[in-house]
Amino acid sequence: MEKRTRIDQVLATKPIGEIITVKGWVRSFRNNQFIAVNDGSDFDSLQIVINRESLSSDTLKKIHPGAAVGAKGTLTESQGRGQAVELKADELIVYGEADPETYPIQPKKHTKEFLRENAHLRFRTNTFGAIFRIRHELSYAIHKFFHERKFYYLHSPIITASDAEGAGEMFRVTTLDPNNPPLTTDGQVDLKKDFFGRETNLTVSGQLEAELAALALGQVYTFGPTFRAENSHTSRHLAEFWMVEPEVAFNDINDNMDLAEDMLKYLINYVLEHCRKDLQFLHNAAEKEDSQKPKNQRPDMGLIDRLEFCLEQDFARITYTEAIDILMNSKPNKKKKFNYVIEGWGADLQSEHERYLVEKHFKKPVILYNYPKDIKSFYMKVNDDNKTVRAMDILFPGIGEIIGGSEREENLDVLKSRMKEMNIPMEELYWYLDIRKYGSCPHSGYGLGFERMVQFVTGMSNIRDVIPFPRTPGNASF
Amino acid sequence: MEKRTRIDQVLATKPIGEIITVKGWVRSFRNNQFIAVNDGSDFDSLQIVINRESLSSDTLKKIHPGAAVGAKGTLTESQGRGQAVELKADELIVYGEADPETYPIQPKKHTKEFLRENAHLRFRTNTFGAIFRIRHELSYAIHKFFHERKFYYLHSPIITASDAEGAGEMFRVTTLDPNNPPLTTDGQVDLKKDFFGRETNLTVSGQLEAELAALALGQVYTFGPTFRAENSHTSRHLAEFWMVEPEVAFNDINDNMDLAEDMLKYLINYVLEHCRKDLQFLHNAAEKEDSQKPKNQRPDMGLIDRLEFCLEQDFARITYTEAIDILMNSKPNKKKKFNYVIEGWGADLQSEHERYLVEKHFKKPVILYNYPKDIKSFYMKVNDDNKTVRAMDILFPGIGEIIGGSEREENLDVLKSRMKEMNIPMEELYWYLDIRKYGSCPHSGYGLGFERMVQFVTGMSNIRDVIPFPRTPGNASF
Repeated sequence: MEKRTRIDQVLATKPIGEIITVKGWVRSFRNNQFIAVNDGSDFDSLQIVINRESLSSDTLKKIHPGAAVGAKGTLTESQGRGQAVELKADELIVYGEADPETYPIQPKKHTKEFLRENAHLRFRTNTFGAIFRIRHELSYAIHKFFHERKFYYLHSPIITASDAEGAGEMFRVTTLDPNNPPLTTDGQVDLKKDFFGRETNLTVSGQLEAELAALALGQVYTFGPTFRAENSHTSRHLAEFWMVEPEVAFNDINDNMDLAEDMLKYLINYVLEHCRKDLQFLHNAAEKEDSQKPKNQRPDMGLIDRLEFCLEQDFARITYTEAIDILMNSKPNKKKKFNYVIEGWGADLQSEHERYLVEKHFKKPVILYNYPKDIKSFYMKVNDDNKTVRAMDILFPGIGEIIGGSEREENLDVLKSRMKEMNIPMEELYWYLDIRKYGSCPHSGYGLGFERMVQFVTGMSNIRDVIPFPRTPGNASF
Repeated sequence: MEKRTRIDQVLATKPIGEIITVKGWVRSFRNNQFIAVNDGSDFDSLQIVINRESLSSDTLKKIHPGAAVGAKGTLTESQGRGQAVELKADELIVYGEADPETYPIQPKKHTKEFLRENAHLRFRTNTFGAIFRIRHELSYAIHKFFHERKFYYLHSPIITASDAEGAGEMFRVTTLDPNNPPLTTDGQVDLKKDFFGRETNLTVSGQLEAELAALALGQVYTFGPTFRAENSHTSRHLAEFWMVEPEVAFNDINDNMDLAEDMLKYLINYVLEHCRKDLQFLHNAAEKEDSQKPKNQRPDMGLIDRLEFCLEQDFARITYTEAIDILMNSKPNKKKKFNYVIEGWGADLQSEHERYLVEKHFKKPVILYNYPKDIKSFYMKVNDDNKTVRAMDILFPGIGEIIGGSEREENLDVLKSRMKEMNIPMEELYWYLDIRKYGSCPHSGYGLGFERMVQFVTGMSNIRDVIPFPRTPGNASF
């Protein structure tokens, strides 16, 4: 059969009267005559009208949801409802069948959990087709945003001997035989004999390496996988996830907030412009699902409204100190409705506090900055008060923290004393100190949890539904 | 000091007479008056002319190569040679010094090996600035190429329980304490107690997962890190490298060759159009280096000429069988000059044979296809001759294999018997078999070793010089 025309092209250009060939997978087969064929290029399927006379009964028997087919014929205006055009097929090939007795993805409602267990097939559903097309557009928009602003994409290392956060639970990477490792004279596993001659782990962040590049190339960003070996079984955590980490020389904390807000709005705007059909489907599906919930649990806004709303708002920008004031004076704190009641300055904010600020108090995205230094990382720039650091977190409705960043400590002596205080090994990070020793300058950056962003845009409540093959404790399938 | 204007903007728009601020790193300081400042946005530096009267001697003393500075003043036409404009600075700030006694990157020629040991600072040199800007443009061009053709970017998993090639030497990923692992009753390490409840490894390829997505979304590509735990200390191998793997439903081996050739030409054309200054520098540097070599070791073409040449040629496309004929009849084979003399059909081609075909016989890129099935992977489509598979390799001058791909075996029974023959565990790959069971169709894809591509475009002979922080046996620094 001839080369195929993609169905998105057919639906967009509607070449009525032309003979075309399409190929894809059967979504439904009605009245022994109408096949909805989807090839992944568009949310919508193309209706194929078959000529039963010209098809062998053998071929007819093979047409079931999930089967791969090719059809050649004339594109015509559709008489039926629900589509503008349809293909009157003169030829039909079934490339691969899908036995209706065993094929798991039938045209009916499946639970998300069932589809997670069949993640190799869930791309074939409306919901996951939409999600993974949107994930693509968001990825592309990230590259486009930074490229337009003359940032360079940096591939920071995945296997690393350092722990950027100084605290993460990490995966070890090794080639030693676990059952028969080489030992040192005192009976410990001899890591010098491992592949890299030392202990290595999977990266928890590309930030430190991005700083090295930023202090030469000016503006860089990473977009790569990062890992946390946390044993959390929540709908918010993955062991393997993708992070976007820009780093900019000569930017201070305010420039950093501007860049982050610009980026988030650019991304939201991009998907609103480029993923309308997929978003509308997810919007409608969420609306239907929400209508089943008790009134007080229904969201104030639909999915698309929420995206448009974020686009129109200036994000609130308040210091940590101001946030503590607001929270101390809030009803849930006074009535001890929070699980963690805020007692005063210095408290670490929990998800419930962040959500209160975003969803109840400001009712829009919030940037919190200038956090107490004791609850933040060693590399964040200490303010003149010597109590706070130039950290910033961006909080989104329904998601909580979507971005965390800071101006970096560029003063070698201050950085060293912070590392000492926090027991960060200096010898191992000599290269990080070197860029403060030679040509240091103010610089800032942040990390965007990419899956959190996809969650926000698609409205998915479980993070396992926005990455193709989620890795979580006990699960590395596919 | 005010926000900076990027130097590439200053050089491109030349706003003579305007007061501007630039920030960057000193490349050189001549006559106590002329500072070449580079901010990474452009290969070229901007000449800053300082007003010595207005600067304290303390500030003057801090100006050395590598120091971070900011300068504000009026842009004027330059009287000197070598630049069109210069900045007459009224203000100058030194953000961070670079002690000339200890700063490793002095304005002189450093060996590549020295710069590898100082990979955290090598971004600050002309050569590595150029390489990593080109690496960025190539990455962007890859996303742009596939996006324009409606491919979706797929994030295939990094931690995996499967071995796509059925043969790779892999890194294990674990959270078990190597010195005190949990044991089963028969004394072996109990992998059920590991983080994922089983043995897991770092991926060697995203292909199998890309196939799952392609058979629903139509056309996808991966662009992510992949890993080989091979103990090779060559200039051609990395333990961690980036791969680009498109996968297309309904494409056969010929479509696959077309796509790969189109992509390679698109990428080469993109860098020729977007990286001219950086390429010219690398071209000139290579020319100078080559001129030191004996005549018979000098390349026929300069770097840019080689890129343009590849663009103009149709790649030669020959079967493996034809290649064997050519090689058997070649001078080096007859005179036993090859290290591995080709004895007949079935031989695995070595790098020396590939280079002969590309550099001596065809003198252009070559696509070899239809290889003996016994030397290729289980998932490649078996031809009707039952002797060969629809594999293809693209061979480039100076690089050798840059792309490897195939049409995939879409017939469930043939695939199963191939897996059996080659001892590939079927139970573990049930999901891979499922997509042949349900809605199977012809499909094809390939893998591009991204660093090989960057090598070809930049002319770097050592692969460690085209990735920011190379991982090789014994080396996971930075």
